[in-house]
This record gives sequence, C-alpha cells and structure tokens, in this order.
Amino acid sequence: MEPASSAPSTRTRIRRIPKNARYDLASVHRVLDRGRVAHVSFAEQCQPYCIPTLYARVEDRVLIHGSSASRMVKLLSAGHPACLTVTLFDGWVLARSAFETGVNYESVTLLGCFTAIGEAHKPARLEAFMEKVLPGRWGEVRPPSRQELKATAILELAIAEASVKTRTGPPDDDGSPDAELEVWAGTIAVTERLGDPVPSPGLHDGIGVDASVRRLARSSPPGE
Amino acid sequence: MEPASSAPSTRTRIRRIPKNARYDLASVHRVLDRGRVAHVSFAEQCQPYCIPTLYARVEDRVLIHGSSASRMVKLLSAGHPACLTVTLFDGWVLARSAFETGVNYESVTLLGCFTAIGEAHKPARLEAFMEKVLPGRWGEVRPPSRQELKATAILELAIAEASVKTRTGPPDDDGSPDAELEVWAGTIAVTERLGDPVPSPGLHDGIGVDASVRRLARSSPPGE
Repeated sequence: MEPASSAPSTRTRIRRIPKNARYDLASVHRVLDRGRVAHVSFAEQCQPYCIPTLYARVEDRVLIHGSSASRMVKLLSAGHPACLTVTLFDGWVLARSAFETGVNYESVTLLGCFTAIGEAHKPARLEAFMEKVLPGRWGEVRPPSRQELKATAILELAIAEASVKTRTGPPDDDGSPDAELEVWAGTIAVTERLGDPVPSPGLHDGIGVDASVRRLARSSPPGE
Repeated sequence: MEPASSAPSTRTRIRRIPKNARYDLASVHRVLDRGRVAHVSFAEQCQPYCIPTLYARVEDRVLIHGSSASRMVKLLSAGHPACLTVTLFDGWVLARSAFETGVNYESVTLLGCFTAIGEAHKPARLEAFMEKVLPGRWGEVRPPSRQELKATAILELAIAEASVKTRTGPPDDDGSPDAELEVWAGTIAVTERLGDPVPSPGLHDGIGVDASVRRLARSSPPGE
C-alpha cells in the first residue's frame, strides 16, 4: 500500500513500514490535536537533548512556552534546528510471535526552527496557547503580570516538514502460519481517565469548581 | 530546598526549579520503571530527530530494539550521542493564575551512547526486554526465528548521566495573594485504563486468553 500522501522532504520520509505513514495536513493536525505533551529535541555541541513540554496547535503552527532563562528556550530562540514529536499510545498488540508483538499508536514529527514571539504579541499568543490546552480557563484565572510575561517565552514552529505514523487494529499474523499455534492473539486498548477535581488545601470556602475545570474532568473518553 | 542528590555531570544538572530535580539511582529507576514509551533523540548533520519507542530497564541499562535497517538503529549503533527521555503525565494543576497553571508529571532523561548487542547475546537480551515490557509473554509466544533475529537490532544504554524531574501536589499559590481571588484551585489526576482483551478476528476457536494477557488487562490502577 502506498502512503496517502507524499513526504514533504527526504528527511521526513518514513522508511520503515511506509504503509503506516501519512504526510497530509489533516492527519498531522488530527494527531497534534489528540496529544498534549510534546517531546522537543535540539542539539548543543553535538549532544541532543529531549525535553517534554505542553504544546498547542494553533492553525498552522505549534506553540510551546517556557522560562525565558531555560537552555531550551535560549537555543531554540537562537534558531537551533529542532524536532517536535507527539506520541499517543493506544494499546498493546499481542501477536502469536515475539517478533509481531507491538503497540497501536500514533505519532507526529515536525522538523524545523522555532521562532520566539515578540513582547507585543505575547499576551495574545499565550491566551491562544492556553485556550487550546485548557479551553475556557484563561477567562477564569488571573492573567499574567508584566513580570510574569517577561519571564515567559513563547515559541512557535510552522507545520511544514511533518510526518505521521499510525498503527491500529489487530496483530498482523492472522493469515500467517503462526495462526495455527495455540497462542491467544488480539489487542488491549489503553485509554486515559481524568479523575474528579481535588480542591487545593488552601482553597477558600464557598468557591465552586469553575466551568472549564468541570468540563475538563468530564472529558474522559465515553464509557469511562 | 536542595536536590536530594547532585547531578552526575554539568550537562545533566537541572537549572529550572532545582527543588524538583533528583539524580539518585533509586529515583531514576523508579521513573524508568513507571514508563513504557521512551523518546530517543539523536542528531544527523546538526538536525535532531526524536523517535518514540518501547524500552525496558534491565538492571543498570536501558534496552531498546528496532529494525536493523532503521536510520535510528544505524546512527545509534555507530555511536552517535543520544538522549533518552521518558515522561509520565500525572494530571493537571489548576492554579488561580495563568502563570502558575501547569501539570503534575515525572520525567527522566539519560544522556550517552548506545551500544548494539552482538548476535550471540541477542536472544537473551530480547527475552529480558520482553520480560520487562510484557511479563510472561515471552514464554507463551513463538520465539524469534533466525531471520527475525537478524532483522532486529537491540541496543543498550548504560544509566550513567541521568536526571529526574518530578512535580506533584496542589498548585503553588495557596499562600500567595492570588488565594484571595474567587478562582477555584486544585488538581485533576490523569490515570490510564487498560481495556478488556479483544481477540484477533482470525483467532481460532477454543484458544483462551493467555495468562500474561489476563494479568496485563487487570493491571489498571486500583479503582479503575
């Protein structure tokens, strides 16, 4: 099977199991919108580093934020090449052989250079970031002070060189000689469950759970 | 608060919020043993790449595997410096300000160079890998053929330069002026739930769910 679209560059082309690869923008957006934590990698003196961080896709860009003083922010702001990867683990694939055993997952990888958002645009970009990460929360909380804004960098990466890998469904050995073995084969799905809101010990009496938090707590997949 | 232990190298020392940093082996092992997917980064011609992969901690090493033909395996086997990061997302931290809003999480980062396991030691290392990832499954499935072994590389990284970051508990603004705001503050935990085993469409009648699969499906956190 050929991929549904072709790679935007040689270095994003997926060589292993190309039938699981996608390069179209709809697939890239879909996987980015499913995730929540990105791993951002960059190199300093040939040593790669890989840092987990929240992110938000806003239109054709991915936003991340961090302390202005952090090494990651400094290097990315200076234009060091980066790779941003988001991975969703969807479950176990239990085949009849060790070799075919694996996982169902989706991942998206973006290559490129981040750019730092200038001071004037920071409040709007931070709001857009938080609106994607925790919809409705920005309007409920105290907005950033001038000092907090200064301490926070917000960086964006254009979605240009992107690839998606997806594996779904049962193991691949139903039609193989292994299907004659007395071994169970199938899948176990892994989903996420959000707990009930737990108030902070210092929460003053009489303050109810805000609407955005109530919606978040209800956002576990159906049937949970 | 000072970290519980000191960084093994300048480049692993955590500069942001050092009170959340740990460098002792027990913490490193604990976080590695909680996780399942690692993000492995490496660079080629100054461009970093970051690939998700299953991994297993076995004693003082981390094992990964992959196709012998993959770019990652080739570069890592050739001794390119790597960074391996494992991140656990534990929940949302809903503070009263945008600035203090964040997540509870644990992550561990290892720096170093992988080494490829030679042919003679591959079967034992693959068994150790699978025994950690899916305990008991190795003994139930068909072991790798000679051809499958040849197609599979197994690489190991010594746990030497490692750091852990952990954030737990309620938001940090209980004792701040923000606590007077009429904003709810607290946490929402995020946990994982494993579904029931779903048989492969081609599973022959009369083959029951294997013991390792039954144990895996029951391994969701208590109360799920």
